[in-house]
Amino acid sequence: MAKIGVLLSGCGVFDGAEIHEAVITLLALDRAGAETVCMAPNIDQYHVVNHLTQAVTKEKRNVLVESARIARGNIKDLKEVKATDLDGLIIPGGFGAAKNLSDFAFKGPEATVNPDVTRLLKEMTASKKPIGAICISPAPLAKALGDKKPEVTIGNDPGTAKAIEAMGGKHHACTVDMIHLDAKNNVVTTPAYMLGPGIKDVATGIEKLVAKVMDLAKKK
Amino acid sequence: MAKIGVLLSGCGVFDGAEIHEAVITLLALDRAGAETVCMAPNIDQYHVVNHLTQAVTKEKRNVLVESARIARGNIKDLKEVKATDLDGLIIPGGFGAAKNLSDFAFKGPEATVNPDVTRLLKEMTASKKPIGAICISPAPLAKALGDKKPEVTIGNDPGTAKAIEAMGGKHHACTVDMIHLDAKNNVVTTPAYMLGPGIKDVATGIEKLVAKVMDLAKKK
Repeated sequence: MAKIGVLLSGCGVFDGAEIHEAVITLLALDRAGAETVCMAPNIDQYHVVNHLTQAVTKEKRNVLVESARIARGNIKDLKEVKATDLDGLIIPGGFGAAKNLSDFAFKGPEATVNPDVTRLLKEMTASKKPIGAICISPAPLAKALGDKKPEVTIGNDPGTAKAIEAMGGKHHACTVDMIHLDAKNNVVTTPAYMLGPGIKDVATGIEKLVAKVMDLAKKK
Repeated sequence: MAKIGVLLSGCGVFDGAEIHEAVITLLALDRAGAETVCMAPNIDQYHVVNHLTQAVTKEKRNVLVESARIARGNIKDLKEVKATDLDGLIIPGGFGAAKNLSDFAFKGPEATVNPDVTRLLKEMTASKKPIGAICISPAPLAKALGDKKPEVTIGNDPGTAKAIEAMGGKHHACTVDMIHLDAKNNVVTTPAYMLGPGIKDVATGIEKLVAKVMDLAKKK
């Protein structure tokens, strides 16, 4: 049974992991026969956003604790997870990937990536294990793996695509129902809610991404 | 296009709406061609549970604001929604249904149900529009509609089944991959995470529930 990590970044599109993308990933992995290993960094969220009003609140929340909501409590501290524990890794999107796993939302190509995120991504590529990155998460991935010149898609947003190229990545435009495969680095990406518009649209791409990650994980 | 309400009760299995059940419902509805109308009561959560440790915290959170995370901000105050706005209604599970939409988790058959939840459920049945209830949410439904003697399933837990019968409902045992239809009241139920064990198992039952609610909504 393939063990596939799912790296979460909180719980909610505006300040954490995009919930639909995360759940669709978990469902597709279970249906594909994978054992899933949810994980998140044990750090404070960059901020907390009221998802009704989109106003930033004064609350403090922890990324691991909030991610545990999506994982129903079955989640590991990212620090404890190594590539040797996994056959593949998938990163759902949401602003959490650009605010908590990295500061790409604020610094663009000058972003820094959480050290444990960088470590795990480098371990995965060093051992030729597949990585799936959804929505905006190809941006921090491009920063962390810039020296590998990863080919990714975030859909067709010109500003984000330009930033990805400035960090060492190569951007390929893609529709929401499709994936882009970087066969050299075993990196699979899909635009999801970077394009939307609806949950059934993002599900089509994410299901293809999960199938490809499982395929690559079995070949390894 | 059928308009189907999705009544949320927070964001997280231990103090709110069960996230997997809610997202699987939204995905199945979108794939079935429904327009979904997310809603939640604008009230404080009964409490906030740290989903990593399962400890109750001192935080205060609002049911509508947290439900908005699942709905990506596109959500209505339950107070503003009437049965005339909808062709059907689905209530995902999670402890939120038994702690926020009602106090069934604490009072069992002596539970009270949020007045707006009761109002909307009564309006739906009065107009013969279908209601789907997932996981534990058939319990508050049985309380709110006890005079209609609704037939429901929550799986096979004897204590919960007994409480449902004490509130006026009739309980039918059911496996996680199946639904129970009360044809007289147009009420469809499925056990989901009352049985689990995994996300693919609960998805099978929820997808059948959504298909049946859509079928009944079109016949209306």
